[in-house]
Amino acid sequence: MAVTVSTILASKGADVSTIGPDQTLEDALVLLAEHNIGALVVSEDGGTVDGILSERDIVRRLHTHGRDCLGDPVRAAMTSEVSTCHGGDTSDQLMAKMTERRFRHLPVVDGDRLAGIVSIGDVVRFRILELETQAQSLREYVTGSSY
Amino acid sequence: MAVTVSTILASKGADVSTIGPDQTLEDALVLLAEHNIGALVVSEDGGTVDGILSERDIVRRLHTHGRDCLGDPVRAAMTSEVSTCHGGDTSDQLMAKMTERRFRHLPVVDGDRLAGIVSIGDVVRFRILELETQAQSLREYVTGSSY
Repeated sequence: MAVTVSTILASKGADVSTIGPDQTLEDALVLLAEHNIGALVVSEDGGTVDGILSERDIVRRLHTHGRDCLGDPVRAAMTSEVSTCHGGDTSDQLMAKMTERRFRHLPVVDGDRLAGIVSIGDVVRFRILELETQAQSLREYVTGSSY
Repeated sequence: MAVTVSTILASKGADVSTIGPDQTLEDALVLLAEHNIGALVVSEDGGTVDGILSERDIVRRLHTHGRDCLGDPVRAAMTSEVSTCHGGDTSDQLMAKMTERRFRHLPVVDGDRLAGIVSIGDVVRFRILELETQAQSLREYVTGSSY
């Protein structure tokens, strides 16, 4: 049975840290530290996905705009074209999507509403479990050790 | 045949972007952007591993010390206790190490000299290849389709 986004959310929970687009990058620094995470979903009302703001987005903006950009609104630095995923997506699909576009965080949407977030770290942890279980089952079938 | 660190380096190359401990965080922003990467190995001479400086280290320091910390030396913000890996380590070992300590980058050392770096993205890419190949071989053995 393949690991899906729903499996991952059932284990880690559906909580997502969001920030409003008009809050500042300084506000974002506080939230990232408080929750010990690498990205925030940008949302007007806590339910829409208007963008994503990662550590990388902040670091790149500091490079291009200098240190005073920390007073800028989140909307100026966020990634607006967000890749999202759905409850039924498998870990294979997640890994492929993250690898292709070099995204480390994918918000989970149900309809167009935010329903969770998965990080590359979450996917790796579950993918290990999944594939080790599969390989073990096949080995047992081949060697007959389970019969 | 398990994917090892050496396999990954043979594909991606052994180049590592380093920064001196007395360079500033502002210098680090430039290097991270130029190379489009998420972490720099901190090294006095380009061969020792004296620390690692990630986007997270910079973002956390900005949170605790304010925007003027960008003039601080790298040594003030870097992670000094670095987890490293070796050419013979398998992708399983890398994933476990990255998951346990939530590190996304592991410098590769040969003796005590820097020999490359692997990111969680590299490991994911190769782990997919490895396990899909294994699963396919086992399926073929079970179904006899390769005989």
